[in-house]
Amino acid sequence: MSPTNALPGLQDLTTPALLLDLDRVERNCARMRARATILGVALRPHLKTAKSSEIGRLASGGVLGPITASTLAEVEYFAAHGYRDITYAVGIAPQKLYALAAIQERFGASVSLIVDELYTVREIATIAEALQQSFRVFVEIDSGGGRGGVVPEDPELLDITAAIVESPRLGLAGVLTHAGHSYGAADRKEMVAIAEAEREAATRAAARLRSAGFTVPFVSVGSTPTILSAESLEGVTDVRPGVYMLFDLDQAALGVCSLDDIAASVLTTVIGHNPRSQRILIDAGGLALSKDLSAFKRDPHVGYGLVCPPNGVGPISGLRVAEVYQEHGMIAVENGFEFATERYPVGTQLRILPNHVCMTAAAFDRYHLVRGDSQRIIGTWDKIGGWTAGREARA
Amino acid sequence: MSPTNALPGLQDLTTPALLLDLDRVERNCARMRARATILGVALRPHLKTAKSSEIGRLASGGVLGPITASTLAEVEYFAAHGYRDITYAVGIAPQKLYALAAIQERFGASVSLIVDELYTVREIATIAEALQQSFRVFVEIDSGGGRGGVVPEDPELLDITAAIVESPRLGLAGVLTHAGHSYGAADRKEMVAIAEAEREAATRAAARLRSAGFTVPFVSVGSTPTILSAESLEGVTDVRPGVYMLFDLDQAALGVCSLDDIAASVLTTVIGHNPRSQRILIDAGGLALSKDLSAFKRDPHVGYGLVCPPNGVGPISGLRVAEVYQEHGMIAVENGFEFATERYPVGTQLRILPNHVCMTAAAFDRYHLVRGDSQRIIGTWDKIGGWTAGREARA
Repeated sequence: MSPTNALPGLQDLTTPALLLDLDRVERNCARMRARATILGVALRPHLKTAKSSEIGRLASGGVLGPITASTLAEVEYFAAHGYRDITYAVGIAPQKLYALAAIQERFGASVSLIVDELYTVREIATIAEALQQSFRVFVEIDSGGGRGGVVPEDPELLDITAAIVESPRLGLAGVLTHAGHSYGAADRKEMVAIAEAEREAATRAAARLRSAGFTVPFVSVGSTPTILSAESLEGVTDVRPGVYMLFDLDQAALGVCSLDDIAASVLTTVIGHNPRSQRILIDAGGLALSKDLSAFKRDPHVGYGLVCPPNGVGPISGLRVAEVYQEHGMIAVENGFEFATERYPVGTQLRILPNHVCMTAAAFDRYHLVRGDSQRIIGTWDKIGGWTAGREARA
Repeated sequence: MSPTNALPGLQDLTTPALLLDLDRVERNCARMRARATILGVALRPHLKTAKSSEIGRLASGGVLGPITASTLAEVEYFAAHGYRDITYAVGIAPQKLYALAAIQERFGASVSLIVDELYTVREIATIAEALQQSFRVFVEIDSGGGRGGVVPEDPELLDITAAIVESPRLGLAGVLTHAGHSYGAADRKEMVAIAEAEREAATRAAARLRSAGFTVPFVSVGSTPTILSAESLEGVTDVRPGVYMLFDLDQAALGVCSLDDIAASVLTTVIGHNPRSQRILIDAGGLALSKDLSAFKRDPHVGYGLVCPPNGVGPISGLRVAEVYQEHGMIAVENGFEFATERYPVGTQLRILPNHVCMTAAAFDRYHLVRGDSQRIIGTWDKIGGWTAGREARA
């Protein structure tokens, strides 16, 4: 449909499709690298959001640096793409060691695990021994999120660490925490406090271990909101933010980015108009946008997404995705439904800024690349999804 | 990890993984076929939930019967698997006709479209003419859901239909409606009323068209709740339920199935325990289970899913997935957290019954098949996901 010598355009895409604005992702990545430099910490970007080797390279300034991942499928994908230092930052299920050992062996990658129970350390020590494979292990610290981890004063902290050090196939990487509850901070003041609590818990745990005679190479913290809010990361060695590469309405509502920083959007097409419900129907629904309403608490008017014209300049005032069904999205029009119907007839393409991009991007298997307000597609980047390792072996 | 001559077991799977209990899906499919027979209507199962050629075959009693789909990727997948009569039941974006024409031509399939605006009919008529490809077209009726469709008394109903009939490349398939708001019915009485309103709107629109001299071959209605609740489907020719093949906690809360009918579940592994938040951590989070809380309104205690032992016999009283993060699920324990921690140590597999299976199943690219309470995997069925047509051509 495009002239032979031109780049394809947005009109050539089947919608819904995931777009990536390279200008924005490059700017976001540069900003976080500068931030890490100022804070004096190493950046180990979490690629659970972007799930893309190329974006990982941008995050590390053009090299395949150390990264963080959250599924076996991601670990394998990044190892297959040449990444050599990967922290698998979800509490390890011991039976996953078989697949991780195969990935380490096949690709020459080094995978770090996280644990928070003595029982788990014993299980993985046994399997690592049987496989004759070595793993670096972080002890996970609960810095207030109540998700994974032991609190720094937990008596088991020392037992877990001792068991790691005593295993001939495990090596202590250090301590790691994630203040996931920073996403729920009420305001900047609370965010700063959570960032400090995250730092404080990790460094206190590290200090306790060092007092007991352990060598603690890495003290790893982070989420995008805490790294962008922290006043000091004294004692921290590594940070693992992830969503900042793409950003979303939730992060904008948290105040850590502006709408113009949001680099990923969903291209959609108008498929109808319902004058009774005063809705414009689009072909991006609950599967394409996700049903996540993270930003809702702070900013109810964003719904499941804000609406931009296809060139991404916007958002368009008075429009939001108010409801989603599996494959239908319903854009509410604040004023002038008749006018909007004429302005956005069936077939019109629109771009939706996602409420929570970690959930939205996961539904797509590739990014279509654009720059600024151009509607030309300058490339396509693959991304990994699902959970099953073995894809790279089959490919 | 399995003995050489035995079938693999659940322990051989990387979690999270999607399981399908064949006993249950066969029973659910037989039940709906019997229901359609009693109601005197043809079954045109909607495969947007199951997204599987093999399940589509079960739904039609062992043959590749007429089906319904909701994405270009599904239409192409089912056509490539031999299905020849496919209704693409989402309002058509005219530019999608190019891909649909290619699918019709390549696989010899016939794809029916739905429209609800005169503008759309004119657009698709022009493209169909240019492509020299014919399409059957349904006029979508709004039976109260306020989503797609015109109301039966809308003056445009006749204009839309006339434009279809006048186009040399379009043929009138009939009228089609979907009372999606049946999912929100307060009780059985309201569900019966919505089912009747759905039937009434579709048959009234058909009658109006017939009075005006049009031939209306098909009058198509349906959702699982309305078909299972309808007292009569007089005047209806086709029904398009979908979620009944798998069922979920939302349908159970609606009262149209029992927990023992739920055929799809997510196999997960315990990865930790947090005594402060009194939660068991599992490796199925918001991506694997979805963040959909459809059943919440009726039955808040199901959370993001109920928990069964790996043999699927359950659910286990007092356990529910209370929170989800991207790759973490948090099981709340009503009583006896210490006891549950001992009973479900790290590495324990559990099965989660999904809150809303249309969202949950979409995250996975295959079903692992089990029967009854056996933990042997008797096969794997692929499924289609995403939106992009062209996969089958690349495969």
